[in-house]
Amino acid sequence: MQIIPSFNFASIPNIIFGPGKIAELYHIIPRFGNNILFVTGTRSIKNSGKWDNIISEIEERGFNFWNVSVNHEPSPQLIDEVATKFRNKNIDLVVGIGGGSVTDAGKAISAMLPKNDSIKNYLEGIGSKLHDGQKIPYIAIPTTSGTGSEATKNAVISEIGPNGFKKSLRHDKLVPDYAIIDPEFMLSCPPTITAACGMDAFTQLLEAYVSSKANAMTDSLAYSGMQHIKDAIIPACSTSALDINVRTNMAYGSLMSGITLANAGLGIVHGLASPIGGYFNIPHGIVCGTLLAQSTKQNIHKLEELGSQGKNFLQKYAKVGALLYNEESINEKDIMKQCSKLITILEKWTGDLKIPRLGTYGLSENDIDKIIEGTALKNNPVVLKKSEIKHIVLSRL
Amino acid sequence: MQIIPSFNFASIPNIIFGPGKIAELYHIIPRFGNNILFVTGTRSIKNSGKWDNIISEIEERGFNFWNVSVNHEPSPQLIDEVATKFRNKNIDLVVGIGGGSVTDAGKAISAMLPKNDSIKNYLEGIGSKLHDGQKIPYIAIPTTSGTGSEATKNAVISEIGPNGFKKSLRHDKLVPDYAIIDPEFMLSCPPTITAACGMDAFTQLLEAYVSSKANAMTDSLAYSGMQHIKDAIIPACSTSALDINVRTNMAYGSLMSGITLANAGLGIVHGLASPIGGYFNIPHGIVCGTLLAQSTKQNIHKLEELGSQGKNFLQKYAKVGALLYNEESINEKDIMKQCSKLITILEKWTGDLKIPRLGTYGLSENDIDKIIEGTALKNNPVVLKKSEIKHIVLSRL
Repeated sequence: MQIIPSFNFASIPNIIFGPGKIAELYHIIPRFGNNILFVTGTRSIKNSGKWDNIISEIEERGFNFWNVSVNHEPSPQLIDEVATKFRNKNIDLVVGIGGGSVTDAGKAISAMLPKNDSIKNYLEGIGSKLHDGQKIPYIAIPTTSGTGSEATKNAVISEIGPNGFKKSLRHDKLVPDYAIIDPEFMLSCPPTITAACGMDAFTQLLEAYVSSKANAMTDSLAYSGMQHIKDAIIPACSTSALDINVRTNMAYGSLMSGITLANAGLGIVHGLASPIGGYFNIPHGIVCGTLLAQSTKQNIHKLEELGSQGKNFLQKYAKVGALLYNEESINEKDIMKQCSKLITILEKWTGDLKIPRLGTYGLSENDIDKIIEGTALKNNPVVLKKSEIKHIVLSRL
Repeated sequence: MQIIPSFNFASIPNIIFGPGKIAELYHIIPRFGNNILFVTGTRSIKNSGKWDNIISEIEERGFNFWNVSVNHEPSPQLIDEVATKFRNKNIDLVVGIGGGSVTDAGKAISAMLPKNDSIKNYLEGIGSKLHDGQKIPYIAIPTTSGTGSEATKNAVISEIGPNGFKKSLRHDKLVPDYAIIDPEFMLSCPPTITAACGMDAFTQLLEAYVSSKANAMTDSLAYSGMQHIKDAIIPACSTSALDINVRTNMAYGSLMSGITLANAGLGIVHGLASPIGGYFNIPHGIVCGTLLAQSTKQNIHKLEELGSQGKNFLQKYAKVGALLYNEESINEKDIMKQCSKLITILEKWTGDLKIPRLGTYGLSENDIDKIIEGTALKNNPVVLKKSEIKHIVLSRL
């Protein structure tokens, strides 16, 4: 019989999932009030014509609304400006429609509207105050299948530059009230973004699955997410970008990645993504995608060295290897073979999806020590030495 | 690639799971206030000494508290009396500690405290009003591994007798704010109750798994629940009743059953349990346990007749059969063989756990027509004729 370690599992949003489900937004809004602040991106949703549809539905129903646009990963300044501008407007509901930057921005704005203060004071590792979770109700509507932000309790806020950082505003109550996941919104997502987001989602699922904090619930949801992404990730970025079923599978995997990372934590890839994203203007999904295969290889190698202590995690990696090769069961004596298969397929995805190396964005060997200084292991299944982490980054320059 | 049908998934409680986790209750209470209404059973928790511990911790911290006891499935009268008595006492938090009847009673009381009205007016199929979800915050602490009520959005209210019923008060917002699942509270649960509750939990998992409303998320959680119950259910009722790991596996399965039934619905076993439980004083878990194997047999038989239309559900039944026999994968040509194995093991459990037949409680052939009249198919994977439903009950008289 399996031993179930103790765990906490945070509340999740009310999830409304499926093509065309945006229509439910208009029925939900009146539960919260009449004054809506929309937080959107600057491009995709507006180009797709979907934004015009939403606005005409909103106007038809006589709701009051405002719209702020976010065109990059949200900075503390952006959140403070928007929160200050709308603090006295009696906003009843914030609705964030966009990629991870946008849905995170909406989450942070909904949390800062009731505070007469800067978000910097509440960021983990930056400010000294604890957010109390009080917020204006928030609905997240993702337009990419990547960050899973629609299901998480944190918003990532970035300041880019020499003293840059990527830090979270986090509270159990910041999980969105509703997440509407409508894969039709993802049909117009271009291949490069679909690829980066898809690799981010898969990284989150795999890191949550082998996390030292994983539990039976996160295991089952992370496995389910990987099961749905595995055959969709390459088609979604190529021949089948307009296939709603492919997009639906990616959206489901991304949603599971958000739920599982919020409850099981992440590993070394996200440990590295935080300082790299702070110092360099590289999309988060690219950082994760480019580091995933090499980090997995390093983890597996280190777990193998550990012997019996590492076995449980190696079995999990092997199970994912078997899943990706459509082999339902794993054989005790084939564990290392299936771990190798996992690395091979992750390397293949990185190549097929043309995920760039870090050097493309100006990152060089001279930057590595500073990056390693700012890297946390998070809930990585095994402790890695600085030299081992360095090796991961070097191999992806 | 799998096709993912659209779905809604309701918010779940903040879950705190593991032996000894009751200790977190005292840290959570101050988030809600100082005045606590405890709803408890009359026996087990008080005999176990756990109640004295809780009270001394509560008194030490200076909280105000009241306690009401519930000794059977809650009736409308009971809920109305308690809600009336405590409506003006400024209760900040309701805490239900007990089996499904108690945690359901607590849930209903927390929902009726803010209403100056009888619960009968809000019960599905009985009253004409819709509950708006407003309630006093509620924490559920189960002491049995059965109903999964700690994770559901409904409270079952029963009136027993010739015009009896078993109906739900239901709203998405009635999902408890917190569910504390501490398997230490289940160690003193006697074998007969452990068996009935365990069969109820397994029934809920299997019915949710093959529900016509099942989705990818409920599938993964229901499968995970069955995976953990399968090797624990017999030991928990016999040799290993005091093994905390066995109780933890049962508690996890029960929790998963609550989450999945709330989101995927149930089938014919629960369709029958509602009128049977209304007319006869038979514990709910016994009704489910005694009907499970025969209902599964009937469903599988009917699905087989349907041919290709029934295949998807037969594959799911076969997958559970394989799981219970520790076979990881199912072979396309062995589907019916694995379905038979599932029926065999369910029959074996019913025998090993000595789940009584319905006749033991006075139910006779003369009662069947009335029962069938009140039976709903719910989300059963296949439509059953009245004669087929009758056959299920007859075979378990």
